[in-house]
This record gives sequence, structure tokens and C-alpha cells, in this order.
Amino acid sequence: MNPDIITSLVTKTDTKIILIVMDGVGGLPINGKTEIEAAHTPNLDQLVKDSVCGLTYSVAPGITAGSGPGHLGIFGYEPTEYEIGRGVLEALGVGLNMTPFDVAARGNFATRDAHAITDRRAGRIPTKTNQELCKKIAKAIPEIDGVKIIIHSGVEHRFVVLFRGEGLDGRIADADPQTPGLPPKLAEPLVPEAEETTKIINTFIRQVEDVLKNEHPANTILLRGFAKYPDIPSMEERFKITPAAIATYPMYRGLAKLVGMHLLETGQTIRDEIETLKANYDTYDFFFVHIKKTDSYGEDGNFDKKVAVIEELDINIPEVLSLNPDVLVVTADHSTPAVLKAHSWHPNPFLLVNRYIRPDEVIRFSERAFVHGGLGRFPAKDGIILMLAHALKLKKFGA
Amino acid sequence: MNPDIITSLVTKTDTKIILIVMDGVGGLPINGKTEIEAAHTPNLDQLVKDSVCGLTYSVAPGITAGSGPGHLGIFGYEPTEYEIGRGVLEALGVGLNMTPFDVAARGNFATRDAHAITDRRAGRIPTKTNQELCKKIAKAIPEIDGVKIIIHSGVEHRFVVLFRGEGLDGRIADADPQTPGLPPKLAEPLVPEAEETTKIINTFIRQVEDVLKNEHPANTILLRGFAKYPDIPSMEERFKITPAAIATYPMYRGLAKLVGMHLLETGQTIRDEIETLKANYDTYDFFFVHIKKTDSYGEDGNFDKKVAVIEELDINIPEVLSLNPDVLVVTADHSTPAVLKAHSWHPNPFLLVNRYIRPDEVIRFSERAFVHGGLGRFPAKDGIILMLAHALKLKKFGA
Repeated sequence: MNPDIITSLVTKTDTKIILIVMDGVGGLPINGKTEIEAAHTPNLDQLVKDSVCGLTYSVAPGITAGSGPGHLGIFGYEPTEYEIGRGVLEALGVGLNMTPFDVAARGNFATRDAHAITDRRAGRIPTKTNQELCKKIAKAIPEIDGVKIIIHSGVEHRFVVLFRGEGLDGRIADADPQTPGLPPKLAEPLVPEAEETTKIINTFIRQVEDVLKNEHPANTILLRGFAKYPDIPSMEERFKITPAAIATYPMYRGLAKLVGMHLLETGQTIRDEIETLKANYDTYDFFFVHIKKTDSYGEDGNFDKKVAVIEELDINIPEVLSLNPDVLVVTADHSTPAVLKAHSWHPNPFLLVNRYIRPDEVIRFSERAFVHGGLGRFPAKDGIILMLAHALKLKKFGA
Repeated sequence: MNPDIITSLVTKTDTKIILIVMDGVGGLPINGKTEIEAAHTPNLDQLVKDSVCGLTYSVAPGITAGSGPGHLGIFGYEPTEYEIGRGVLEALGVGLNMTPFDVAARGNFATRDAHAITDRRAGRIPTKTNQELCKKIAKAIPEIDGVKIIIHSGVEHRFVVLFRGEGLDGRIADADPQTPGLPPKLAEPLVPEAEETTKIINTFIRQVEDVLKNEHPANTILLRGFAKYPDIPSMEERFKITPAAIATYPMYRGLAKLVGMHLLETGQTIRDEIETLKANYDTYDFFFVHIKKTDSYGEDGNFDKKVAVIEELDINIPEVLSLNPDVLVVTADHSTPAVLKAHSWHPNPFLLVNRYIRPDEVIRFSERAFVHGGLGRFPAKDGIILMLAHALKLKKFGA
């Protein structure tokens, strides 16, 4: 449905919505039970009895979502419409504070000789060396032709760089030959509008090589994943809500900021996050609470620890309910089954608690049970419409 | 699916389709049961056993449909594609016979002084006074520059006016300051094409003020919701059927006429409507039978009376079946739960009886049971395709 129609139907009310995202919570069975099914979740099971549920596909059936599209969908945006480039995601992930004027890129320190890139990772230099080199570069090259350079060191050979200035364009091919032994490769514009930005990036690469000329093995850099900070209408603009994000990891805080959420400071545990929710409950009307570790342990293939995180949320559910939110949703951005050690395409559980739900017959928190949920199966991006509807924030369409 | 493809696949046959729309029948539970679940419906339950069922969303998940979009969907039209403006719906609602040359508006009699609108409802003048004033205006202003004026009195201060002429355009902003104390406001064109129509409307307002100059408190009018009669391809054209409408309320007769249905005269009760169906059964091949009172009692918050209307239809089901229709569908345009006293976004039950259904396992007429229906969940506008298919009116697509 055309998002402008949704916007035209939303009214500002004082009802409140809590959206808990258990990153990658959906799984696959080991010994007959998925991670969710193996978890002891008395509070979530009770919630399911009082809720209507269903399954969402993050992007489309069979498509595995990255973190960017997975969250865009949950936030109510068509994930194929707004692209969050690799560079931007990386910059958000290290906690860089991006602006709409920024083009971001992922960087590697690398080794070259007169003719070729000989090591794409500069022998995986120590992180400490990386930090020193980044400091040196930042000092030597603060800006190029009025474009501000912001460099942020990462682990081993990795770093992120932001080019900040008016009229930059991120549609640029990687400055990376990919295969060692090939000659160094400068950035190349993919569209004429990106020619000026490309010149600045290539000037930056040459100036960095000058800064690093006496270093070894890190005597050059490779840049890839060029991407401009995407221009996404804010949730406030689109859905007339005042959203706040409670997330421990920088990338998810960054994704929330992309859609205009207010970022709340919080601690490292689920309990910390729920305390932050309670402390800020009066100030906002939409809360995105992000729980990261279901995904982390899924990626690690650690079934049992993923189960434990689900149980940890379960213990905190009564605290959430004590706020008596008008709408409470528990869902995920994508599945991360421990058996796959990766994101997957399997649909996500979605449960919605509200006084105006039409009850279904599902009584257990389980992917398999949710097949029979009253909400059926729907694109994740429609979740926000259901939340707004149940919070009585949507006028009827047409007379 | 592109409607032109559907049109290209339809063949005219002598199979017959009966579509019963229980307006707003879907509900929400009180004491654990929805209105449908609380109703004693042995005939509908038997029908469910012999049918395939599912749930429809009127427009999109979470979107509450007005009567216009709700019915357009059921009639097989994408409800976001064809707009039925407020003025048109109001005109249809009072039974005005509109033509494609008409621009309609809702009107208020109001009170003004030299500077401002002092009462937007003219003290809610008696309906009888309203009727006299409308007669006076109709007599004094039969036409303006070749545009015919048709005015129809409503309750208290309300009326409807049609402007009928060649080349009129309804894209016009309200002639209503909205807030009392503000100066009177003339109509304003929203697009250049509407300038001529706007002139005529504003001439009308001035002439009406002249007619009313000695009246008190109704000495002016406010006009809003300007809308042109929409240009919608007829069902006959699109689906190659000859449809007839059996509906007691003017608005639904008007909506049926919008898509080219023949309007059959009928009485006030469901039994009257079924008698009309039987009497005309040989003449048409598609029947839209509209049952209003499920919605009316839902809007009133009267759970028990809504239940009683469902039971009243149930009693009449054997009479419908005695016609032995090739396809019988029972569904709704939107939900109207008594607990909400308003239209809602919850999906609609849809049951289809036909000799070529693939049976499902649902055995009760209930929203909750229909979650498990063989037709799943689908946009209301696809219902017509299912009806045509089961009536063997659709050729295969492609060789």
C-alpha cells in the first residue's frame, strides 16, 4: 500500500506501542525443537494466549534479510526501496555519527609494491598499529577540497572512512582489485554525478599512500562499499509517532537513527534495556527494544546460549507488562538458526498484545504454532500498520 | 493482477453467482465469543461444511475500510485506485440519482454576520425548516451558466447539492472555514482544471446568500467534500456478467450503481431481499445481496441485536440454497465489532459454496475457525476472481 495513504490516515494519540525485536530469534530444530521451542518461556506462552500472532517474512518468501533490510521492514519501510549501502552499515556498526552529507566506505590497510597489491590485509596488522595509522592519517588529511575526512579504526586491518561534504554521491565502484597480485585500482564513478566525489576519494588514496610511504606492511589502503547516507523519511514524518530506540549495539542504534528514532542510553543486559524503557516510558509513544544476542549466538551456532537469551527475555516480560502498553509486539528482523550459523529466510514469529485483538487459537510461543496464528503470514513492513491500527491511531480509509 | 488480464479470460456462461454481503459482520469477542460465534447458525454452519472458506482484508492488513472502499473491493476493484469522494457518498446515501456529469458536495446551513461564520450549523435548524429552505433555493437557482443545480435536504442543518454539467471537475477545496469565528471562505480550485467549476460553485454560494438574506439563523451555507462522480469501468465490462443489486439502503444501491449493477426494488427485511432474489433469479447471472443491519447494530455497540441479524440471515439460507446457485459467497465489506462501535481493520469471513471447491477442514461459521480455511487470507478484490473461477467463467491463462 502506498505509504502516503498510511501517513494520511495516522492521527497522533497518546496510546503507546512497544516493539521488542529479538534479533534472529527464529530457528530450526535440533532434536526436534527450535531454539524458541527448547526455551522455557512461561511468560511468553501466557502472552501468546492473550495475543494474536502470525509469521512475517522479512523481505519476501525465501529471501534472507541482512540487518539493514530486516530492520527497515520492521520499521515499516519497503526494504527493497531503500538501500543501506555496505559502507553506511559498517559506519553505523562502529558507532560513527553519520549525517545526510556523508559518503561512507569500508577500508583495509594493505600492502603494495611498485606494480601490484601483494597483501589485501597488510598481514592483519595489530589493531593497535591500525589505531596509530588512523590517527596519523586523520592528522595529515583533515579535508580535501572542502570535504571533511573522518576515519575510524577497526579490528586488525579494517577501518571505516566518511567523506562529508555538499553534493557527494556514493555510486562509485570499489577501489580494490579484489585479488592479490593485481595492480592497485582507483575508485571509478558508476554515474556521471559521482565524478567529483570519485576525484576526492582518489586524491585521498594518493595522499594516504604518501602518509604511509615509510610504513610496512601497511603502505596502502583499499576502499570498498561506497555508499551515501540514505534519505529515508523519518518514522515521525511517516507514522506521526515519537519513537525511541533502546539498543546496545551501535549498528542497531544507527539503523534506528536512520529512521529518525531518538537514541536512549542503556546498559548491556536485557534487564538494563527494560529499565531504560521504564525510565523513558512517559516521554515517547513508540519504543524499539533491540535484543542482540539471540542473533549473535545463532551466528556462533550456539543453540543452548541462544535458548538462554530467549529465557532471559521471558523473565523480563512481566516488567514490560507492568507498563500496560496499548500495543506490545514481540518479533524478529530475520531468523538465525544455530544449525545454519547464519541469517536465514525462514519467517519470523510476530505476536501482538492489545485489547482489540481478534483472538486466535495459538497457545505456545513457537514458530510451528504461529503457523496457525490469526494474523496469518505477512510482509514484516505491514507490522507497523497493524501496531498503529490496534493502538487506534489510524482513521478509516475512505468514507 | 492486471484487471485487463481478468477481462480477457472471462467467458459469458449461464452459471449464476450469489454474493451475500453482511455489512460489517466480523466482530470481536465479548465473554469470549464474537457476534458470529455467539449467533446460533445451524444453516450457515452446514454451509461451511460444504464450502471452502478464508479471510479477506478489505484494503490491506491493518487498514479500516469505509463503505466505499469496502464495497469496491468486494466488487473486484482495487479500492486505492478508485476514489469515491465524500460528497458522492453522501449523495448516494440520500438516494440522489447521480450521473457521470455530476460534482457533489455536502452542505450545512450556517449563520454568518458581516465578518465571520458565527455558527457552522445554524443552531441545528429543524429538518422541516431545512426542507423549506432547500425548496426555496431549488426554485430560485435552478441552474448557473448551463450547470443544473440539484439540492436535497437532509437532517437538521445538513443537505447535499449536485452540480450537473459538461466538463465539471471536483478537485476543489472546501468552502468552509471549519472553525466558527473565522471569515466565510469560498471554494478554491486544487487544480487549474477545476477553476470553471469553482466559479460556478462560488456563484451558487453568493446567490444562496441572497435567497437567504432575510432568514435567521440559516443565512448562509458551507460546502465541503466536493467530488466528481467517479469513472469506474462497469462489472459488465470488466467481468462480462449481468449484475443485479438487492439492497435496502440508498448508499449501497448507489455504490452498486457506480459499478453498473441493475438496481432491484426490494423491501426492508432480509426475507424481502431473498424474495426479490428469487423473483429475479432468471434475469441476471450475478446478484449482490446487501444486509445492512449487522453494521448498524455494530456501530450502535449493540452486540445482541447484531447477533440476531446474523441469525435472521441464517434462517433464510435454505431459501437461497433452493435456487441452487452455481456459486454462493457469504462475506463482508469490513468488520464492525460492537465493542468498537465503529468499522475496524479485522479481516472478513469469506465462504464459497460450489461443486468444484477443494474442501477444507473448517466446520463452524466463525472468524477464528476461518483462520484455517482453504482459501487462506487474501485481498477482498480477489474474491470476484474466485467466484468467476468456481462458476467456470474463466478460461485458463496462457496455453
